[in-house]
Amino acid sequence: MKKEISDKVINRLTLYHCILQDFIKNDEEYISSGQIASLLRIDDSQVRKDINLLNKSGKSRVGYIVKELKKSIETTLGFSKTKRAYIVGAGNLGMALANYNNFSNYGLNIVSLFDNDPDKIGREINNKKILDIKELPIYVWQHYIDIAILTVPAQFAQSSAQFLVNAGIKYIWNFTPTVLKVPDDVQVWNENLMGNFLQFTYDIN
Amino acid sequence: MKKEISDKVINRLTLYHCILQDFIKNDEEYISSGQIASLLRIDDSQVRKDINLLNKSGKSRVGYIVKELKKSIETTLGFSKTKRAYIVGAGNLGMALANYNNFSNYGLNIVSLFDNDPDKIGREINNKKILDIKELPIYVWQHYIDIAILTVPAQFAQSSAQFLVNAGIKYIWNFTPTVLKVPDDVQVWNENLMGNFLQFTYDIN
Repeated sequence: MKKEISDKVINRLTLYHCILQDFIKNDEEYISSGQIASLLRIDDSQVRKDINLLNKSGKSRVGYIVKELKKSIETTLGFSKTKRAYIVGAGNLGMALANYNNFSNYGLNIVSLFDNDPDKIGREINNKKILDIKELPIYVWQHYIDIAILTVPAQFAQSSAQFLVNAGIKYIWNFTPTVLKVPDDVQVWNENLMGNFLQFTYDIN
Repeated sequence: MKKEISDKVINRLTLYHCILQDFIKNDEEYISSGQIASLLRIDDSQVRKDINLLNKSGKSRVGYIVKELKKSIETTLGFSKTKRAYIVGAGNLGMALANYNNFSNYGLNIVSLFDNDPDKIGREINNKKILDIKELPIYVWQHYIDIAILTVPAQFAQSSAQFLVNAGIKYIWNFTPTVLKVPDDVQVWNENLMGNFLQFTYDIN
């Protein structure tokens, strides 16, 4: 049975995973909750509580076994459950995400990009082809695609979202600074960069 | 006196602000909490509670006055308190952030970029110059800069962070998938894209 894990815990587990990758690179076999806590400046007890939510913690007498803990996070968060996605909008941000090879480690397989710029269509970015946005509806119909990653300029965000919805897309990862209007059966995740920035800077005088 | 506002509320207020901008574009004078709630698929009462945290809500008999509510969010979240930042790493992601004009509306002024690639140094992106990373320490010393936005490839993340710390930087907005080791007086905000992605996709079968 799948345990309920809150967004905050998912976020922290992903950061623990980053740390574990570094430990593996440095051939470290064990890690303590205290080491993780101190790198992230959070409470030791918080780290232990999060790790206890995993099916297997890989705990040994000298600390957690790095490789086992890493694997356990991957299983719990479903890294091996591959989700297929494409990027809509091959501007700088779309290109940046297409070039970001780290995604595949987390089960996100970016298949291709779509754009309406004739100069971009047909080019390849990191082995992903840029396709004509006009072909998107037939493409969605032919391939099984979970997620559209929306990286168009703000003024085209709503019309692009409508186009995606009409093509049958049910999940939109929205990188535009626009709140999209979509039907109830379509899920939108707002990657709210400015909200994150303001959380960070709220306390800077 | 500054009220304590939680990260979640800051995040939501930023989304309300996006909606208000759209309403202004469409010449709408009033907005109800229900309209905001339905666009974000959250509870009406949640929206009203958040808005009550603002110093002035701009409430009238026929709904909130769009322009006043927008202004009030800006004042509360300190959009007018400009923070100066530069981007370290002029790759696709750095370029995307440099091109993102929306930041300045929220008080984030990206002054310039830094890179070590001779082909990039001296070029301009969106009126921001790409400078030689070697000049960064003297630059930090001469200009008052609040924030470094770290967008280098993962393998250079820790060494770049160390370089920034040595140059006197106290705030790092970290877009690399690496947990940085920095002294206690340096604050790091991890822009944890994968954590966000996994929160979004955790429930997709």
